[in-house]
Amino acid sequence: MPSTALTHISTLVTNDPSLGPGPLGPIQDAAVVLEDGHIAWVGTTRRTPATDSHYDAAGRAVIPGFVDSHSHLVFAGDRAEEFTARMSGRPYTAGGIRTTVAATRRAGEEELAGRLAAHVAEMLRQGTTTVETKSGYGLTVEDEARAVRLAAAVTEEVTYLGAHVVPEEYRDDPGGYVDLVTGPMLAACAPHARWIDVFCERGAFDADQARAVLTAGLDRGLGARVHAGQLSAGPGVRLAVELGARSADHCTHLTDADVEALADSGGRTVATLLPGCEFATRSPYPDARRLLAAGVVVALATDCNPGSSYTSSLPFCIALAVREMGMTPDEALWAATAGGAAALGRRDIGRIAPGARADLAVLDAPSPAHLAYRPGVPLVAAVWHRGRRAV
Amino acid sequence: MPSTALTHISTLVTNDPSLGPGPLGPIQDAAVVLEDGHIAWVGTTRRTPATDSHYDAAGRAVIPGFVDSHSHLVFAGDRAEEFTARMSGRPYTAGGIRTTVAATRRAGEEELAGRLAAHVAEMLRQGTTTVETKSGYGLTVEDEARAVRLAAAVTEEVTYLGAHVVPEEYRDDPGGYVDLVTGPMLAACAPHARWIDVFCERGAFDADQARAVLTAGLDRGLGARVHAGQLSAGPGVRLAVELGARSADHCTHLTDADVEALADSGGRTVATLLPGCEFATRSPYPDARRLLAAGVVVALATDCNPGSSYTSSLPFCIALAVREMGMTPDEALWAATAGGAAALGRRDIGRIAPGARADLAVLDAPSPAHLAYRPGVPLVAAVWHRGRRAV
Ligand SMILES: [Zn+2]
Ligand SMILES: [Zn+2]
Repeated sequence: MPSTALTHISTLVTNDPSLGPGPLGPIQDAAVVLEDGHIAWVGTTRRTPATDSHYDAAGRAVIPGFVDSHSHLVFAGDRAEEFTARMSGRPYTAGGIRTTVAATRRAGEEELAGRLAAHVAEMLRQGTTTVETKSGYGLTVEDEARAVRLAAAVTEEVTYLGAHVVPEEYRDDPGGYVDLVTGPMLAACAPHARWIDVFCERGAFDADQARAVLTAGLDRGLGARVHAGQLSAGPGVRLAVELGARSADHCTHLTDADVEALADSGGRTVATLLPGCEFATRSPYPDARRLLAAGVVVALATDCNPGSSYTSSLPFCIALAVREMGMTPDEALWAATAGGAAALGRRDIGRIAPGARADLAVLDAPSPAHLAYRPGVPLVAAVWHRGRRAV
Repeated sequence: MPSTALTHISTLVTNDPSLGPGPLGPIQDAAVVLEDGHIAWVGTTRRTPATDSHYDAAGRAVIPGFVDSHSHLVFAGDRAEEFTARMSGRPYTAGGIRTTVAATRRAGEEELAGRLAAHVAEMLRQGTTTVETKSGYGLTVEDEARAVRLAAAVTEEVTYLGAHVVPEEYRDDPGGYVDLVTGPMLAACAPHARWIDVFCERGAFDADQARAVLTAGLDRGLGARVHAGQLSAGPGVRLAVELGARSADHCTHLTDADVEALADSGGRTVATLLPGCEFATRSPYPDARRLLAAGVVVALATDCNPGSSYTSSLPFCIALAVREMGMTPDEALWAATAGGAAALGRRDIGRIAPGARADLAVLDAPSPAHLAYRPGVPLVAAVWHRGRRAV
């Protein structure tokens, strides 16, 4: 692959503190060289080495591609009517995850794959170069296996979430469903997945069930992640830390002991905040400041799904994090790039430094603060993904 | 200009109650024919008349182009640092409107025109086909006249806002500044403007000064609009209604008498809500529900400006209006299209009906509710402006 230099970058966010001041490690009037899908060099424009091709950023800012470490993109149907009813204060009884499960089970493979690809492309246009995505709308061995297989065709970050909710047909036998999730369903899904996840919440899976699910996944060589503290404080966060899960996701309702456990993990368990969910459900936002003050590593992700958060925009989540969650623009940008990478246990993405994957976005703005300063505006002007111009 | 048919539109929002149920007047599986810059025909796909060219919307929704009835786009500089300091709780003394006034006065005409055109283009990409924009960062006869002249080159909806703030050099003589605004500055600006506006607020212009400004503009044949009730309840809203202003803008702080006055105007004075401003300043949002319940006509606009609301996205404002202000997705969409048109006293825009200007946006979504349901996602897939494909 020919080498490419991007030059005249007003601010290059490297997320490498050895390259510039603070966690973002910014370089002013910067250049970056891409070669063979990786970052070959970073520095100032006037020192740019010779390359095969050249892109003049003309005073615009460049950031690492966003790492969206939490989404649910394998689904069919949408729930616009349920959303509209909720926002209008009208009752709506036909909604919930089960609606999406029914639509997803009914859908053909081609439809599911097409929609998945369209959502990944939509994310890429908005600067997201890595996306984690989950199963969880199948809830049978066959449908979950289909979901992780389709997901694996578009991303290396696939999460098996058979333990999303207990399906109708196991309503009177949740233990039997946990046996399925940890037995034949796990066996069918593990070959296509990197992670196992469980929705640990009242009305979903309790601490013992969640422990059984995660332990079974860990035994199969999957990494653990947990939906925890979304609707109420519960055992999920401490379980995540105890089992060495890479991320506890939502973290909206936390006890002091939860915050302490996350902090004590020393960054091993990241708190992944999903403000699109609170936006779409008119719920109170998680308190990012409290977590940052305690030394917890924080990631921002979209939770993109048709029920509780149908945004695919990390810039939107950054703007919410700054407006509503006490994050500075710099902290929010870090959380949506390096934070997402940490939540996936990755060092090769989420930063622009020699050796990292050449994933980056050019912003139609002179500074990265514009992502929060200009909410809703599509500021991503160009994207390189694995060294290739993708947008 | 050759005629064009758009067909297979899942939902066509006409904003014409004679064409479909309710204020949005939607037509399902619809088609629309554009000819000579206007809407020539609307109906169902299977009845589409023959045309010169054809665009298959393939099940996507189509809405009238957004009408952004309040923005401040003639400026130089940006205030990202001030925004970052405010959001991070750090003191920042160098900010405020006066920073932008200084930068705008210093800027060359080419720079101002270039930035203005870039912002209008950015809006068009997001579906905004009509934008009102104001002077107000010049505050000298020459600089205000330059601003309205530049604005008139990009839009027919130009507002003279010499009475934005009392400039430094008149700090001890606000009366003298009002004389300037109503005298030589008005004379220089009126030929390029359609509207006159005043910032009626503590610390800006009081009721008597605002009345003098608006009356002078009305005498010159300009229409009136008022910045009222942004930071506190004050005399601005009732003054707007009394003088027959087409819009009272912000309306965040309202007394019962204000709401009653707006309602009694019978739609003559529209309440234009600007939630981007409350988002960016962490202020409480206006209560749209209270206004709608009283029968007030409500518009949504961006207030796009570098200080208090640097969004250019009406979809973002729609999402905020639904999340934060008690509007339904339908009401918010109406307010950002037909509402904006009403706030500008226009019948030829903000709707898709025979005779209206051919301004419309194709959404990458099956229903217009997705604008609120998918916050932050750039859903505008194509735009026609005055009958021509613009995006
Ligand atoms: Zn989730
Ligand atoms: Zn304004």
